[in-house]
Amino acid sequence: MKLDEFHLERIQSQWENIVDYNLSESGVEPLRLNELVPHNRLQREILETKLGYPQTNGSIPLRRNVSSLYEGATEDHVLVTNGGSEANMVSIWNMLHESDDRDEVVVELPNYMQIWGYSRAFGANVKSFWLTEGDGAWLPDIEGLKDMVSKKTNLIALCNPNNPTGATMKEEHLKAIAEIAEDCGAWILSDEIYRGAELVEQRTPTMWDYYDRVLVTSGLSKAYGLPGLRIGWIACKDEDKVRDLWSYSDYTSIAPSMLGDRLGQMALEPAMREFIEKRTKRILKENWAAMEKWLGENEDIMTCIPPEAAPVCLVKYSESIKSTELAESLIQEKSVLVAPGDHFLLPQTIRIGYGHDKKKLVKGLSLTADFLRGEE
Amino acid sequence: MKLDEFHLERIQSQWENIVDYNLSESGVEPLRLNELVPHNRLQREILETKLGYPQTNGSIPLRRNVSSLYEGATEDHVLVTNGGSEANMVSIWNMLHESDDRDEVVVELPNYMQIWGYSRAFGANVKSFWLTEGDGAWLPDIEGLKDMVSKKTNLIALCNPNNPTGATMKEEHLKAIAEIAEDCGAWILSDEIYRGAELVEQRTPTMWDYYDRVLVTSGLSKAYGLPGLRIGWIACKDEDKVRDLWSYSDYTSIAPSMLGDRLGQMALEPAMREFIEKRTKRILKENWAAMEKWLGENEDIMTCIPPEAAPVCLVKYSESIKSTELAESLIQEKSVLVAPGDHFLLPQTIRIGYGHDKKKLVKGLSLTADFLRGEE
Repeated sequence: MKLDEFHLERIQSQWENIVDYNLSESGVEPLRLNELVPHNRLQREILETKLGYPQTNGSIPLRRNVSSLYEGATEDHVLVTNGGSEANMVSIWNMLHESDDRDEVVVELPNYMQIWGYSRAFGANVKSFWLTEGDGAWLPDIEGLKDMVSKKTNLIALCNPNNPTGATMKEEHLKAIAEIAEDCGAWILSDEIYRGAELVEQRTPTMWDYYDRVLVTSGLSKAYGLPGLRIGWIACKDEDKVRDLWSYSDYTSIAPSMLGDRLGQMALEPAMREFIEKRTKRILKENWAAMEKWLGENEDIMTCIPPEAAPVCLVKYSESIKSTELAESLIQEKSVLVAPGDHFLLPQTIRIGYGHDKKKLVKGLSLTADFLRGEE
Repeated sequence: MKLDEFHLERIQSQWENIVDYNLSESGVEPLRLNELVPHNRLQREILETKLGYPQTNGSIPLRRNVSSLYEGATEDHVLVTNGGSEANMVSIWNMLHESDDRDEVVVELPNYMQIWGYSRAFGANVKSFWLTEGDGAWLPDIEGLKDMVSKKTNLIALCNPNNPTGATMKEEHLKAIAEIAEDCGAWILSDEIYRGAELVEQRTPTMWDYYDRVLVTSGLSKAYGLPGLRIGWIACKDEDKVRDLWSYSDYTSIAPSMLGDRLGQMALEPAMREFIEKRTKRILKENWAAMEKWLGENEDIMTCIPPEAAPVCLVKYSESIKSTELAESLIQEKSVLVAPGDHFLLPQTIRIGYGHDKKKLVKGLSLTADFLRGEE
C-alpha cells in the first residue's frame, strides 16, 4: 500500500532551501543559540555538555518546566519527544494500536495533514469536521462534529490555534467539544503548538482545562521559535498513559537530543519564556501589519480572515488557477514558495507564513500579487 | 492490541539514572561538545547557530560526509534521521507498508529487539535465524536462514557488528546472506551502528559492498560516542527509495536537530572522524582488558566469547537464577544495572556494556561477581 504523500512537507522539503522568498514557513524567525544562552558562564556550560543520551522521556527539569504550562501537572504528566511531530505520531500510534474497537479518528479541518495521513496509514477510518467561515471568523462546526462521532471514535483531533488559518477556539467551543467526546467515550488529541503565539490579547485556552482524557501535544518549534531543537511533548493527566506512551517512543527515536533537552529547559525558564513569547508576539504584530497592508492593496483579488494567533493565514484568491499550479508557477516564475490550499483540502487558497524576515516577506508578497495580476 | 514491551529500553530508561553502576549502556563514554569542537572560532560559530529547521533529510554537507562511508555513494543515497533508532523505524515502516504480499521479516538473533518488536506491531510475521556458538565464536546459522526465508520474505534484518554479542560477520557470511536474499527477492536491513568500533584490526565489512537492495542503518550513537546528537541515517543505493523513505520521515519527526546536523557533519570530517575512531578503539581496548581480567578471575562461574567489536559482550553465568531476576536483584542489592539476557531471548546470560568509566566498570563488575557468589 502506498502512503498518502504528505504534500505540504514534500513541497516544503523540496523547495524551501532553493527559492529566494520562502513564504511557506509556518514558524517565526528562529532564535540563535546565543540569544537563548546570552551569558558567558552558561555558554561555557553548554560547551562542556557531554553528548550522551539524556533521560529518554526528557530530563526532570525540562519536564517540570513543560508541566508548568498545564494547571496541576507535574513532570510525570509529560513525555518529551523529538518535536511536536513525533508527539503526534506517538499519540496516534499508541491510541490506534491499543484499541481493538475504536478505529475512527475525527480530524478538525483545515489542518496540517500529519494526523490525517498517519492515521490513514494505520488503517483508521478518518473523518472530519470543519472550521467554517462566519461573521469574519473561522468557527468550529460543532453540529458537524456531533454528526461525525460514534462509539467507534477513538480520537477527536484538534489543532488550536489552527494551522493554516490562525483561528483560535474559545472556551465555549472547547467545552462543547469536550462534551461530545465525553458522550461518545473518545479521547481528544489537541495539538496546541501555536499556543502562546497570539496576535490577540487573550492566551488561547487549552483543552487541558476542559477534558480529562486529553493528549495535549506541543513543542518549541512554533510559538517559541526553536524548531531546530526538535523538542516536543505530550501532556496527559493519566500518569499510566504517559508511561505507556513512553514505551512507544522506545521504538521510535528513544530520546530527544541532549542539547535539545538542556536548551529546551532554558527556553522554558520563566524569564526566558517571557522574553521569547514577547519576541514572538512582536514579530507577529510587526509582520502582520505588512500582511494587512498587502491584503488591503489587493482586496480586489483576494480575501483573508485575519489570524488570531500563529504566523500563518489563509488567503483566498479570485484567480481561477488551481492552488497547486499557482504554487508551482510562483516557484518557477518568481522564486516564491507558498503552501497551496489544495494541501489543506481548501482549493483557491494559499497559506502564507508571515513570521520570518519582514523585508523578504514584503518582497515575496509583492511578487505573489504581481503573479496573480499577470504582471511580469 | 498491546505493544510488545521493549524490555531492554524499559529497564534502562527506568534505572539508568538511578543506579550507581550502570553496566547496561551499550555505547562508549560520550564526547563533550568542546572535544568535538575544540577551536574557539568554531565554538563561536556554533553559538551563532540559528535554531531553525535544518534541511529535513539532513544538510548536504552532512549527507556527503555520511556517504563517504559507503563506496560509490553520494548525498542522494542518504537520509538523515533522529538516531539509528528512527532509521530502523522508518525503514521497517516503509518496507512493510509498501508491500502487499511480503509480510515476513527474518531477524538475526540475538539482537537489540527494536526491529523485532516494531515489525510485530505492524503485523509482520517475524521469524529468526541465530548466531550460534562454535569454535569460540558467534557464527551466523546460514542454513537456518535458508530454511526461514520464502517468497513472502520482505526483509532480512542484520545487526553487524552484533548487539549484544559484539560478534562481526565476515565477508563470506555477508556474501552467503546476500545470495539467500537475492534468491527469495528480499531486501536486507543491515544495522551497522557499531561499525568502526572494532577491537580487532580489520574494519567490519558492510553489506553495502555485497548487495544492491540493502538499507544500511547507522548513526553516531555507538562507534562515535555521540548519542546525544540523535544523528542516524539510512544509506541505500536506490535514490528513488531514499526519496520514498524521506516521504515517510515527513510523518515521524520531520527533521533532525539543527545542532545535531552541524555537529554531526563536524564529527564525520576526515580528521575528526579519525580522532573519534581512535578514541573509541582506545577506550574499548583499555576497558576490555579490565573485562578480560574479571572474566579470568571468575571463569569458574561464567564464560564469555570475546567481542570483536562494540563495547558490549554477553556473559553466560552458571548460577541457576533467571537473568531478569538477577538483574532486578543486582539493582536492589548492589546498585548495578546490567541488561538481562532474557531480553535477548538468551536466558542465563547478561549483557555487559564496558565502554564507559573504567573505575566504575571495575567496581560494578566486582559487585556483580560478589552477587553471583552470594557474597554480601
